[in-house]
Amino acid sequence: MKTIDLNCDLGESFGAYVIGNDKEVLRSITSANIACGFHAGDPSVMRQTVQLAREYGVNIGAHPGFPDLVGFGRREMKVTPIDVYNNIVYQVGALQAFARIEGLPVKHVKPHGALYNMATKDAALAKAIAQAVHDVDSSLILYALANSELALAGEKYGLRVANEVFADRTYQADGSLTPRTEVNALITDENEAITRVIRMVQEGKVRTVNGTDIDIQADTVCVHGDGPKSLLFVQGLRRELKEVGIIVQTIGEHSS
Amino acid sequence: MKTIDLNCDLGESFGAYVIGNDKEVLRSITSANIACGFHAGDPSVMRQTVQLAREYGVNIGAHPGFPDLVGFGRREMKVTPIDVYNNIVYQVGALQAFARIEGLPVKHVKPHGALYNMATKDAALAKAIAQAVHDVDSSLILYALANSELALAGEKYGLRVANEVFADRTYQADGSLTPRTEVNALITDENEAITRVIRMVQEGKVRTVNGTDIDIQADTVCVHGDGPKSLLFVQGLRRELKEVGIIVQTIGEHSS
Amino acid sequence: MKTIDLNCDLGESFGAYVIGNDKEVLRSITSANIACGFHAGDPSVMRQTVQLAREYGVNIGAHPGFPDLVGFGRREMKVTPIDVYNNIVYQVGALQAFARIEGLPVKHVKPHGALYNMATKDAALAKAIAQAVHDVDSSLILYALANSELALAGEKYGLRVANEVFADRTYQADGSLTPRTEVNALITDENEAITRVIRMVQEGKVRTVNGTDIDIQADTVCVHGDGPKSLLFVQGLRRELKEVGIIVQTIGEHSS
Amino acid sequence: MKTIDLNCDLGESFGAYVIGNDKEVLRSITSANIACGFHAGDPSVMRQTVQLAREYGVNIGAHPGFPDLVGFGRREMKVTPIDVYNNIVYQVGALQAFARIEGLPVKHVKPHGALYNMATKDAALAKAIAQAVHDVDSSLILYALANSELALAGEKYGLRVANEVFADRTYQADGSLTPRTEVNALITDENEAITRVIRMVQEGKVRTVNGTDIDIQADTVCVHGDGPKSLLFVQGLRRELKEVGIIVQTIGEHSS
Repeated sequence: MKTIDLNCDLGESFGAYVIGNDKEVLRSITSANIACGFHAGDPSVMRQTVQLAREYGVNIGAHPGFPDLVGFGRREMKVTPIDVYNNIVYQVGALQAFARIEGLPVKHVKPHGALYNMATKDAALAKAIAQAVHDVDSSLILYALANSELALAGEKYGLRVANEVFADRTYQADGSLTPRTEVNALITDENEAITRVIRMVQEGKVRTVNGTDIDIQADTVCVHGDGPKSLLFVQGLRRELKEVGIIVQTIGEHSS
Repeated sequence: MKTIDLNCDLGESFGAYVIGNDKEVLRSITSANIACGFHAGDPSVMRQTVQLAREYGVNIGAHPGFPDLVGFGRREMKVTPIDVYNNIVYQVGALQAFARIEGLPVKHVKPHGALYNMATKDAALAKAIAQAVHDVDSSLILYALANSELALAGEKYGLRVANEVFADRTYQADGSLTPRTEVNALITDENEAITRVIRMVQEGKVRTVNGTDIDIQADTVCVHGDGPKSLLFVQGLRRELKEVGIIVQTIGEHSS
Repeated sequence: MKTIDLNCDLGESFGAYVIGNDKEVLRSITSANIACGFHAGDPSVMRQTVQLAREYGVNIGAHPGFPDLVGFGRREMKVTPIDVYNNIVYQVGALQAFARIEGLPVKHVKPHGALYNMATKDAALAKAIAQAVHDVDSSLILYALANSELALAGEKYGLRVANEVFADRTYQADGSLTPRTEVNALITDENEAITRVIRMVQEGKVRTVNGTDIDIQADTVCVHGDGPKSLLFVQGLRRELKEVGIIVQTIGEHSS
Repeated sequence: MKTIDLNCDLGESFGAYVIGNDKEVLRSITSANIACGFHAGDPSVMRQTVQLAREYGVNIGAHPGFPDLVGFGRREMKVTPIDVYNNIVYQVGALQAFARIEGLPVKHVKPHGALYNMATKDAALAKAIAQAVHDVDSSLILYALANSELALAGEKYGLRVANEVFADRTYQADGSLTPRTEVNALITDENEAITRVIRMVQEGKVRTVNGTDIDIQADTVCVHGDGPKSLLFVQGLRRELKEVGIIVQTIGEHSS
């Protein structure tokens, strides 16, 4: 029986600023990546998001990012590996405290935005992230792009790694995502996107931009909750997965 | 046998900005209040400070403050009790993660600056702080001004409270500190300051500004490490305490 | 012929965070108060907002606030008058540079949120604000609550003061706004709100919460652009003002 | 008669955090680059620094940087050219307001840290900076590394460019600075450093790391004021320059 986790970035509001439809998307996902106050989120938003996730029975993870609120953590920053390590520890620790007072565990860590992207190729950064996650709590699951340096680093540190795939992105022959600057980076046809996810889960294959198939391990799919279209897509994806007999459940539900 | 704890604010550097002589003052104190990134400190400074405290065998505590770096947390802010609660949880949680990876426990929480001062008189704020400390870890010791609303709130939540006294400040008849705006707020004669601390520890009494004595419970003395004069004072205080037979040790060393 | 200015807070978005319907509300107002990066806004948002205001022919002013993004500048902060002065100079100067490159002048300054509210009663703060505005550019118009310390301070510094009134708030006998914590603080009936504005403009009177009339000078009305209901109200207000023969135009259009 | 300008980064303190010996170094330099609150500095520090510079008769310039206080603007950030443009306008505008109220003009702009370094090679970034400086005030002098993309961009926008050289850094054959990661990046012998500066000013030549001479235009030398050793070096450099008949004066003293 094939299974897949659906993860989404949550808790990205900040003070008076609201982003996302957290309540809506929580109905459809199985793992929530909660912003920790560096690129998005604030202490009160974090607590509310943990409470919401518990209410909807969704697993929570930390979503640490670069200290760049105005850039939403999407801009590359040349932060040293040791500072990245400490930034991860800090952010995960903050979320753990909220999780503890609300009575549920932090299950995973997924780096955000530019930090996530840089760690797919930068081995030193990937090592710093994996080491920080390991040192804070070695039972945490590291969410990483399938076939990336980050996935590799997680395995080296003995972490359970959730290989993440993207429904709306195309892949290069080397397993990396086609950069958004390329014209064929995005898959806009929703049916095609869903079909590709199903194939990744069932066959462990994805068709690359140059027409060849490569192996890909799909443990979790990244979905979005900002805007009605995103919400409809998540609901559609979940329905289709069920129809073809793939169980949508969080990582580690039946252990590894 | 009388005992007293000497506590000092540490880890207040930020990025390229350095404040304090953390290494020097660690030789003389028994508890370090570590800034948590809101009014001072950053993740890398926090980790280094935890490492230093471990090296010198000094207990660590969280020193959460208002989110006001440019004001160093010294400016009153009308933050709601629920936001104060969440800000405390966040900051303590972040420090706990560093403590865990460095293998030592966070022993206490002492609010910083304007947050500490406001909580001496504002019962709602005091309650929010005490509740946050309790919810994060009920074995944490709450450092609070002796005779304050914060000390009271800590007791109501069943926390162990360390009553804090100040060597260089005068007291009002109601047990509060004389505001710094008053001419007689500070005790500048170091011998007098030391004599007063010894009396507070040995007799549980302090002479107020209007000449009467009041009861005061002295569990910990707040000292400073910024500048050679402060360092000399701490060393002198420690020496004198030892000479009169008062044991300088951290709170809870022999348990409560 | 009676005239009135309609002002609205604009440019409150920040990075990926969007607040307000700036384009929509610009069709109905005559003065835009642009956030300057401390409580809201960022350099790119500021520039876009200046460009939009020019496009719609709306006068612009600076809307400086406390350095408290997470609190949206709505929390009281005990900032010293000298720091308030410097914070105002900084923020107004930043907006002036964008105005200059876009070829239109900064016409007014309206303090934001808690800074505005505190300056209605705190004479030292009011003086610091008025002095800063005067020193940066003595031809700037200071927007201040009618009958407030800020209005008084502006006059003392020889500034042109625009007395601001609120359509949706009730007034105390001393001319101050009823605090939002009181049950009768808000006027929820839109027709009543419009009727009150018309009376303030035409008769210079407003009925207070204890039933008596007081004198009030209404040069500008504060309106809001966040949400469809606010937009409808602004449109309705503008239509009604026109119908009773009040000219809606910016301050100083026909000079003072 | 040969002339040279000595410039130094000033006003880098922030709130309670102090960096640099601004008063001391102002005795020896002719141009002060004042931090504008993004990577260092705050509104009150900016004003005090402008006042100090006026007192010592030193020209002032804006020293805008990346919005990265914890990294002191020294970390590369992938900020888009349009955001860089707006960040420059904002920071220069803020300084201009302080300059105006203190009665002296902002004379130049020198980008700080990673922004400066990136703009030496990144033509799009260099263009954004030069364009922003031009648009804010086309009479501003742009300080740029001699032979850099930034110097080139400044000339394209018709700005007066001050070619900056470094006393304590070695040069590559292409005119760029040897990266700090290389072993031979720094010149630690102070006499050698001074000799090299004199040659750059008098002959317009500098010996590169591979032994050949290249042409270099030296309009201004970057010096430092943090620490007694830096101060001594500046004083020594100034003395030696005078002795060999080079006039130390600010750019544009005798017009352009």
